Amino acid sequence: MKFHHIGLITKLHSPLIEHTVKKLAEFLKEKKLDVLIEANTAKLLKNIQLPSGDYQTLKKHCDLLIVIGGDGSFLHVARDIVSFNLPVIGINRGTLGFLTDIHPTEMTEKLEEILSGHYVEEKRFMLEVFTRQGRKIKRKACALNEVVVTTSSVAQMIEFEIYINQTFMCSQRSDGLITTTPTGSTAYALSAGGPIVHPALDVITLIPMFPHTLNSRPIVLDSNQIVKIVLQDKIRALPHIYCDSQVNIKVDRGDTIYIHKLDQSLRLIHPMDYDYYKALRSKLDWGKKLVP
Amino acid sequence: MKFHHIGLITKLHSPLIEHTVKKLAEFLKEKKLDVLIEANTAKLLKNIQLPSGDYQTLKKHCDLLIVIGGDGSFLHVARDIVSFNLPVIGINRGTLGFLTDIHPTEMTEKLEEILSGHYVEEKRFMLEVFTRQGRKIKRKACALNEVVVTTSSVAQMIEFEIYINQTFMCSQRSDGLITTTPTGSTAYALSAGGPIVHPALDVITLIPMFPHTLNSRPIVLDSNQIVKIVLQDKIRALPHIYCDSQVNIKVDRGDTIYIHKLDQSLRLIHPMDYDYYKALRSKLDWGKKLVP
Amino acid sequence: MKFHHIGLITKLHSPLIEHTVKKLAEFLKEKKLDVLIEANTAKLLKNIQLPSGDYQTLKKHCDLLIVIGGDGSFLHVARDIVSFNLPVIGINRGTLGFLTDIHPTEMTEKLEEILSGHYVEEKRFMLEVFTRQGRKIKRKACALNEVVVTTSSVAQMIEFEIYINQTFMCSQRSDGLITTTPTGSTAYALSAGGPIVHPALDVITLIPMFPHTLNSRPIVLDSNQIVKIVLQDKIRALPHIYCDSQVNIKVDRGDTIYIHKLDQSLRLIHPMDYDYYKALRSKLDWGKKLVP
Amino acid sequence: MKFHHIGLITKLHSPLIEHTVKKLAEFLKEKKLDVLIEANTAKLLKNIQLPSGDYQTLKKHCDLLIVIGGDGSFLHVARDIVSFNLPVIGINRGTLGFLTDIHPTEMTEKLEEILSGHYVEEKRFMLEVFTRQGRKIKRKACALNEVVVTTSSVAQMIEFEIYINQTFMCSQRSDGLITTTPTGSTAYALSAGGPIVHPALDVITLIPMFPHTLNSRPIVLDSNQIVKIVLQDKIRALPHIYCDSQVNIKVDRGDTIYIHKLDQSLRLIHPMDYDYYKALRSKLDWGKKLVP
Repeated sequence: MKFHHIGLITKLHSPLIEHTVKKLAEFLKEKKLDVLIEANTAKLLKNIQLPSGDYQTLKKHCDLLIVIGGDGSFLHVARDIVSFNLPVIGINRGTLGFLTDIHPTEMTEKLEEILSGHYVEEKRFMLEVFTRQGRKIKRKACALNEVVVTTSSVAQMIEFEIYINQTFMCSQRSDGLITTTPTGSTAYALSAGGPIVHPALDVITLIPMFPHTLNSRPIVLDSNQIVKIVLQDKIRALPHIYCDSQVNIKVDRGDTIYIHKLDQSLRLIHPMDYDYYKALRSKLDWGKKLVP
Repeated sequence: MKFHHIGLITKLHSPLIEHTVKKLAEFLKEKKLDVLIEANTAKLLKNIQLPSGDYQTLKKHCDLLIVIGGDGSFLHVARDIVSFNLPVIGINRGTLGFLTDIHPTEMTEKLEEILSGHYVEEKRFMLEVFTRQGRKIKRKACALNEVVVTTSSVAQMIEFEIYINQTFMCSQRSDGLITTTPTGSTAYALSAGGPIVHPALDVITLIPMFPHTLNSRPIVLDSNQIVKIVLQDKIRALPHIYCDSQVNIKVDRGDTIYIHKLDQSLRLIHPMDYDYYKALRSKLDWGKKLVP
Repeated sequence: MKFHHIGLITKLHSPLIEHTVKKLAEFLKEKKLDVLIEANTAKLLKNIQLPSGDYQTLKKHCDLLIVIGGDGSFLHVARDIVSFNLPVIGINRGTLGFLTDIHPTEMTEKLEEILSGHYVEEKRFMLEVFTRQGRKIKRKACALNEVVVTTSSVAQMIEFEIYINQTFMCSQRSDGLITTTPTGSTAYALSAGGPIVHPALDVITLIPMFPHTLNSRPIVLDSNQIVKIVLQDKIRALPHIYCDSQVNIKVDRGDTIYIHKLDQSLRLIHPMDYDYYKALRSKLDWGKKLVP
Repeated sequence: MKFHHIGLITKLHSPLIEHTVKKLAEFLKEKKLDVLIEANTAKLLKNIQLPSGDYQTLKKHCDLLIVIGGDGSFLHVARDIVSFNLPVIGINRGTLGFLTDIHPTEMTEKLEEILSGHYVEEKRFMLEVFTRQGRKIKRKACALNEVVVTTSSVAQMIEFEIYINQTFMCSQRSDGLITTTPTGSTAYALSAGGPIVHPALDVITLIPMFPHTLNSRPIVLDSNQIVKIVLQDKIRALPHIYCDSQVNIKVDRGDTIYIHKLDQSLRLIHPMDYDYYKALRSKLDWGKKLVP
């Protein structure tokens, strides 16, 4: 597939970002492509004069979105646009990320390739978390990396039961529980002792945070299963829910927490030479070939 | 499906095993079922007079195999009979295992249920490992739990490259590498810091053993990928390969090691009330329901 | 040394506690010993009529303090009375703790022994943490288990430098840092991956909490060294400081955090048969003798 | 103290080592210092003509030993010469080590300083391990880094009891046990999940290797305590003992293993600007100052 209508999005404002967006827009216009800048991006980057539109306009008019920024910005945008079913590219600001894997210096070259229809498309599934009281769904959010249910104060462990597809798994006393996608497995979950999970896999990983008992371990499950977290009845400090460390959901007394796979997946576009293991080696400083 | 021709296998000899096999045979004969005892089992249990046959005979005549013993015995038998494509039940000697989940005291009750066609069948995939020099495959073995490639002496780290489907992943200096199935994820791999993996998942986990660099981590991959291990050219101490900690394969200088999924899967039979999470809770001493 | 003036302290109110205190007071009075109940304890346990006094009175009149409750209560009392230089005994409510190691059912027997001068006295050092801005010390607290400096929100890692006795050790991005005494090494620090440290040792352990880089590790240092934590200049979310998960100190922008050994140590009294390893085995479910 | 009689030792032969030794000898002779080369070193480096002598001669004549090579060579020499009570300097071959912390390019400059009496001397304690059957001590060795008692085959866990100063600590089923000095805490023990321990501390750390039960943890103990390991009576595969991954001691059926601190300590000499934390940052790639 070739792309003709390109939406540009960033969440940040810096001279470097401004420069990259400008260069990018010029390149795209030279290629006689439609360029539309997202409305909030337009407000951030006042020196860049381009037709702009809100997310709904981008959804209607674009066949490709480009996010300029770091992995953090990309997470924001991913949650915003996952339902649009549009392919997305991430262009980094300087240091490479797992999600934003095109460097500004190679941007035009890589985009040339992608725009001519040579690219790799990956589906990255996302999670939805919601709180429920009785039959009423109260609060909802989604995450590309991970959902963290955690005590609001290190001074108060939380105690809860975990159910998988309505089957009781275990109870746990800990600082909380991380439910991560494969995409999130190299982010916060990795710091918490979770395994790295190849992004093509249809699995989630549950990782206890500072569990009170030493025999708790990360567990990898089918991503099509529903995780239910039932808080201890008389819990003293109600937990918070964080999505991608960016969205915070409040939990009320009596709420039950559900985490499940979002219906829509993110369509992540990479250049042809994309190599997940190369990204791992580079980001985690893993060993190179013994005889290069 | 109902079963009519039952093969009995054990790898152990003890009064308890003898008693269990005797009781089991009587129960099956009362049910007017064909009972065939595996030839080596017959040699072990001389006091039990039953028609016996070698593995090939069992393969031809039986529609169900019952293994009496612990998880260790079950692993042995699993590797022997995986190619027969026959359903297998594990009956434990006393302590419950992950694979042998029927207790002698509830044996007749559970079998009654299973024999009448009420049971759960699980596919458990296995791994095959082989060494190759040039185009020649030299040694081969299979594993239900894990394949361990490890230094023959703690005094000598090994250094090797890992390739996934011919793509270079990383090089590593460590005491070795564990490649585990989901079935093996609660065995040796768990001691080595690997995650627990639900047995229904089609994934393998690679776990570095005492890696020299601190940023090595377990990684979960699609089980349909081929793991290739290329040893450092001038490696001083050649590694050993262990399958399920039971089979030992020698590695020669210049050998490359391949690990991939075995074509056949094990058909593991459980009673209707089988609950993986209950087994986890019981074996790992995980937290029970908060309000029972 | 024999004891004559006994102070009784609890932080909890329950029929079980009330019963234990009553039984304890009767026992002590029978032994013709002076019994003084701490003022707040007296308010909690209205049914128990005993001479009472505030902490200063206890400090003057008592030569032994007895704390009734769990390890949590003991921590509270320990911080209150450490400067009194008085020996303390912990009597548990039911489940044994690491600090409160006398069970109510064996209370009179063990006390008989201790009161007659047969006991083991352990020094347990404590930590003091203070925040400083310029030359001004702003807030101060002490801890028997651990000092935790942690982000106020899981959504915001903190970045800081660690200095040991004014020598730069490293910078770190993480959810925070635990500084634990040997006493605390079997508490929160253990959940966070710290080693167990024998309580007689004069060392502290620094444990990174979910460090961003995978090569961070717990480090054991001389307890006579001063730990200084310098927060990143433009830190977005200021951290909190928790002592024993019970006391919370606020950190202001520009504050530097210091952690060092408290001058006074806690004088912890155990019965003659006290065995630290037995406590470990019991609390952590470690393996018993192979041939009992 | 100033040094006048210098012994030179290496365990390796390479053009780089040869060059470094030559340069070193010239430098020392220019300074009018006595230079004695260790006998085996002399055999290795045939092109270097210097007076040579065996270890006993070095012991008698030298007041300073210089080891040229990597940390591995240094470990060898340390075990050989610890009883001589002589100060030792390590000069690395290229990459810095924890023990050999002088780089060849800065060698003369650093030695100038040290030889004029400006240096830091550290005591590094070592471990002795011996096997005993009844009252007979059978085999003995010492270690600067760690003593590893481990199964001779990954296929066979070992089961054993650990006693500290004759007090039972726990039994364990695992691949083995590492007992490490602070010096060894950044070597093999670190790969096995042990904490980093400041080299000035008088503690040892016991680290279970792939323990069968998930609640096993590293434990830090007073280095003046004696560790006793009693193997399970009917152990199938006898373990091996490794010192510094270099010396291998055989264990016979019925042997008990003792590990304790060696009477003599190694006298390790550093330049004045020696900084342990800098070495940590460099070797473990820890975070630098936030504002340099």
